[in-house]
Amino acid sequence: MLKKIASVALAAGLLFSGLQVTFGGDFVKANNQETQNQGKVKNVIFMIPDGYNAGYATNYRWYIGEDSSFDPHVKGLIKTHSANTAVTDSAAAGTAMATGHKTNNGMIGVTPDGKEVYSILKAAKRSKKATGLVATSTITHATPAVFAANVASRSDEASIAPQYLENNLVDVILGGGRDYFTSVDDGGRQPEGNLIKEAEKKGYQYVTDKTELSKAKGTKLLGLFAKGSMSPEMQRDETEEPSLEEMTNVAINTLNKNKQGFFLMVEGSQIDWAGHAHDSAWAMTDTAAFDQAVEAALEFAKKDGKTLVVVAGDHETGGMSVGSNGQYDLKIDILHNVTATGDKMASEINSEKSNIREVVKKYTSLELSDSEVEKIINASNTSIAINNVVSDRALVGWTSTAHTGTDLPIYAFGPQSNKFSGLLDNTDIPRIMAEAMKIKFN
Amino acid sequence: MLKKIASVALAAGLLFSGLQVTFGGDFVKANNQETQNQGKVKNVIFMIPDGYNAGYATNYRWYIGEDSSFDPHVKGLIKTHSANTAVTDSAAAGTAMATGHKTNNGMIGVTPDGKEVYSILKAAKRSKKATGLVATSTITHATPAVFAANVASRSDEASIAPQYLENNLVDVILGGGRDYFTSVDDGGRQPEGNLIKEAEKKGYQYVTDKTELSKAKGTKLLGLFAKGSMSPEMQRDETEEPSLEEMTNVAINTLNKNKQGFFLMVEGSQIDWAGHAHDSAWAMTDTAAFDQAVEAALEFAKKDGKTLVVVAGDHETGGMSVGSNGQYDLKIDILHNVTATGDKMASEINSEKSNIREVVKKYTSLELSDSEVEKIINASNTSIAINNVVSDRALVGWTSTAHTGTDLPIYAFGPQSNKFSGLLDNTDIPRIMAEAMKIKFN
Repeated sequence: MLKKIASVALAAGLLFSGLQVTFGGDFVKANNQETQNQGKVKNVIFMIPDGYNAGYATNYRWYIGEDSSFDPHVKGLIKTHSANTAVTDSAAAGTAMATGHKTNNGMIGVTPDGKEVYSILKAAKRSKKATGLVATSTITHATPAVFAANVASRSDEASIAPQYLENNLVDVILGGGRDYFTSVDDGGRQPEGNLIKEAEKKGYQYVTDKTELSKAKGTKLLGLFAKGSMSPEMQRDETEEPSLEEMTNVAINTLNKNKQGFFLMVEGSQIDWAGHAHDSAWAMTDTAAFDQAVEAALEFAKKDGKTLVVVAGDHETGGMSVGSNGQYDLKIDILHNVTATGDKMASEINSEKSNIREVVKKYTSLELSDSEVEKIINASNTSIAINNVVSDRALVGWTSTAHTGTDLPIYAFGPQSNKFSGLLDNTDIPRIMAEAMKIKFN
Repeated sequence: MLKKIASVALAAGLLFSGLQVTFGGDFVKANNQETQNQGKVKNVIFMIPDGYNAGYATNYRWYIGEDSSFDPHVKGLIKTHSANTAVTDSAAAGTAMATGHKTNNGMIGVTPDGKEVYSILKAAKRSKKATGLVATSTITHATPAVFAANVASRSDEASIAPQYLENNLVDVILGGGRDYFTSVDDGGRQPEGNLIKEAEKKGYQYVTDKTELSKAKGTKLLGLFAKGSMSPEMQRDETEEPSLEEMTNVAINTLNKNKQGFFLMVEGSQIDWAGHAHDSAWAMTDTAAFDQAVEAALEFAKKDGKTLVVVAGDHETGGMSVGSNGQYDLKIDILHNVTATGDKMASEINSEKSNIREVVKKYTSLELSDSEVEKIINASNTSIAINNVVSDRALVGWTSTAHTGTDLPIYAFGPQSNKFSGLLDNTDIPRIMAEAMKIKFN
């Protein structure tokens, strides 16, 4: 990935120096191809870039100097509001996308009055399909959780983990969150080591690093690669932690052993976290990791011919814009030089705040002005302040540290992909997937 | 319109109080209907909400409590960058959308090296179709101008007007900008009264108010309803100035007399100006005016069966978000009480700035806090400061006083509308329109 980004830095620079460049000239081909493809859907791969909308898509296109792997497959827009507000959280948005039911912010797999609702993953399992969840957050975090758990509160991650294993509901579980499977948590309800041992007894292979993952065999797989969340892509130890693409490939290969097909959900979890922190560089690098995972899924789907790939964010995060501060320009190439998150930079700033210039220079190559240093010194949140300074340099704008409620693009590839055309509600997505797979749902 | 908005204010309030409301349940119907419709295109109505993207669309949906007339017809996304930057202006964006050629910001109907390029309106005229331009700006402003003029600089509006009349290029011309047709401008190149008289000699009927417009007959029409731009919708004198919907209806009826069909461009010009000013209420009310114009066009297209309606913004303005400032909420119903633009409010604030509270209360019903008053007093631009305070109350965020470069939704209805599916470049639009009408282009 780093090589890819480095090689396009020059191209991106050229784009801004007056050359006329046209992206995505193959849209007609892509569309025509898919219009013809109304065949049977055996497998569904649902990929969720948490927090991603058209603003991220456009910034990312300039960042890499070409269309993302899923850009050409855009089909329409989805509405994202929850049952109680125009601006959803990931729990309510995920519940809508997994179960077809709107709920209140904070609730997972239950309606506002607490009634448990059924997910597309469970429906796939009932129809003898293999199932998988992949994420770069804890695997028990809101978005993956909605597909396989029902809890009143998203923070109750210790109650979510055992639900994945109940009746072997989820065959492939890959992500962070070892703590929710092994350690005492939430009043001691989970005895140490219990869930992992339980999984192994049930026939799951348990892996904890990249090498083990690459050697995975069998049909049941539990991979927990961090105690909490996995690393942001730009700080990932490439010898230890698998990439989202690697997890996706192993998940697909494992699930594809089932002759009845599979349902797999893959989340680019940290794009959202980057948005909350106004961390433009983190947003771009974690989008790159997600893009490569989608590319792997699309490659499989193209060969397979019976796999539907759907890509849609659950909400926008941060109100990210392409250009900001009254300028008709974008300087996103600045982000190619950023090698750490704002959080990491903030953690290295001393208590006197006397080394701001050095730390920021070290990880961004930027020479801060006096007023920029002043802003960081005076801010209540050092990390966000650093990220705002970097974003201002890149002309990437932000309006909120929370989510926003704008409609999001939805992308689909493979048989039945045209069913995702037009203006959809997020609750339509699992229903259309069930219809495409011809399985019972609800 | 006001009645419509008043009646939905209650509904919008309910939406936020916890009721589960589903918008747009008829998307499947709409899509299916259009998939079947691959017939011949006789007429094209190209409607441009200047500055509008998915953020505006979502805020507007909450503002009126239901889908806009064009929401259900979304087909894909368009890229908007100009030849020299990721963040286009209206001149370069319009040139792309009218001629299929990228150019530099500020240039109208010419390539970066000054070569004149051909517009879809001219191509339609060459194929014996009638042609029209409708806008709420001066009709010689950047977006309408690109369809019928070639000038190196968009500010040269006096050179644009005569090009509309040359060889009767534009049959129906409706909007503001009387000054560019009648008064001495730009070094005296336009003798007073000349262009209007010239138009009348050529057989154009000349009208200047709503009543005259409603009585228009014949096949050639020049309507100039203001010296400069027309009024923002919320300040329009409904007895004098026609609405965008009224202009659109008269334009359609006039152009439809031509048996060879027509090409009409309608611009909601001031949505963009509202965005530049961070004026959320102006953005919503001018979007409402545009929405009603689209509704009129769609009604005609449904009856006619041979009319393709395409709706697409030329760029986003302001970086508008749905929700802001770290809150998971939107309070857009506040905007229903706003009855003047920030510009008008600012013009009524005295030089001591002692009546800020009174003026803002009068036009917004908001009681300002001390810190809000302080912000307005200290701001370099009073109008934008008032608008920022109102937007903060409504939880509508902004990142720029300029445009932004995000991809925009494109909507289409009628025969061949599926040709606009997927990820397009703005330069693809006129080419697809020409293909749909089966006319020579380029």
